[in-house]
Amino acid sequence: MELNLGAHLTGKRGTPDYFTGEVWVEALAQSPSSNVQMARVSFAPGARTAWHTHPAGQILYISSGRGRVQKQGEPLREIHAGDTVIIAAGEKHWHGAAPDCPMQHIAVHTVVGGNSADWMEQVSDADYGG
Amino acid sequence: MELNLGAHLTGKRGTPDYFTGEVWVEALAQSPSSNVQMARVSFAPGARTAWHTHPAGQILYISSGRGRVQKQGEPLREIHAGDTVIIAAGEKHWHGAAPDCPMQHIAVHTVVGGNSADWMEQVSDADYGG
Repeated sequence: MELNLGAHLTGKRGTPDYFTGEVWVEALAQSPSSNVQMARVSFAPGARTAWHTHPAGQILYISSGRGRVQKQGEPLREIHAGDTVIIAAGEKHWHGAAPDCPMQHIAVHTVVGGNSADWMEQVSDADYGG
Repeated sequence: MELNLGAHLTGKRGTPDYFTGEVWVEALAQSPSSNVQMARVSFAPGARTAWHTHPAGQILYISSGRGRVQKQGEPLREIHAGDTVIIAAGEKHWHGAAPDCPMQHIAVHTVVGGNSADWMEQVSDADYGG
């Protein structure tokens, strides 16, 4: 058993290669037996990921605020604290905060061959605006 | 992509076979490609799981409150909102609220052959009291 105390966490600024706007990532846990990783990600209003996919999918638990998520080819969806988003393997999508509200989520994904995400182009203002 | 809206969740009372005190479990997500399950579990003050193990381990993210976790043969540890607990495969342990404060956590584990936990004896008041 291992405890990772929130009081000692260090945030890392999300790289502009994969994010638009101010994003902070805190690595929370990696379960060695199953390669499951957990991270807490905080998006300032207007901030979002680039388009990306996950080799084994991802679960997002919205821990606070209000945001947006979109699967390629589908309409943008609003997400709120307490919601869960299940992203299938290989599904191209993005997620982020609302324009006028921060959003924080707990992200859970499985690492496959050392890789947990494949990153693509940034989300344009037009796509972000819906 | 699938959204599970928190506003529509239904809680299920934790069975007295596996829990002591008042516990509510909300199933949040199952990622089909990797058999990763996520649930939100709310413990009233004094409530706790029985002793148990997980075939592929578990990650707990303490979403609110204050609680306790113990691995067999080790001292009881205090846990607080924002902390993460990583439980290895087969590690016998329990978790629950503090005697004077509720605790809520997000639990993430991998299902192996249809099974995500093996349940054992209840946590006695002496063990719970530390």
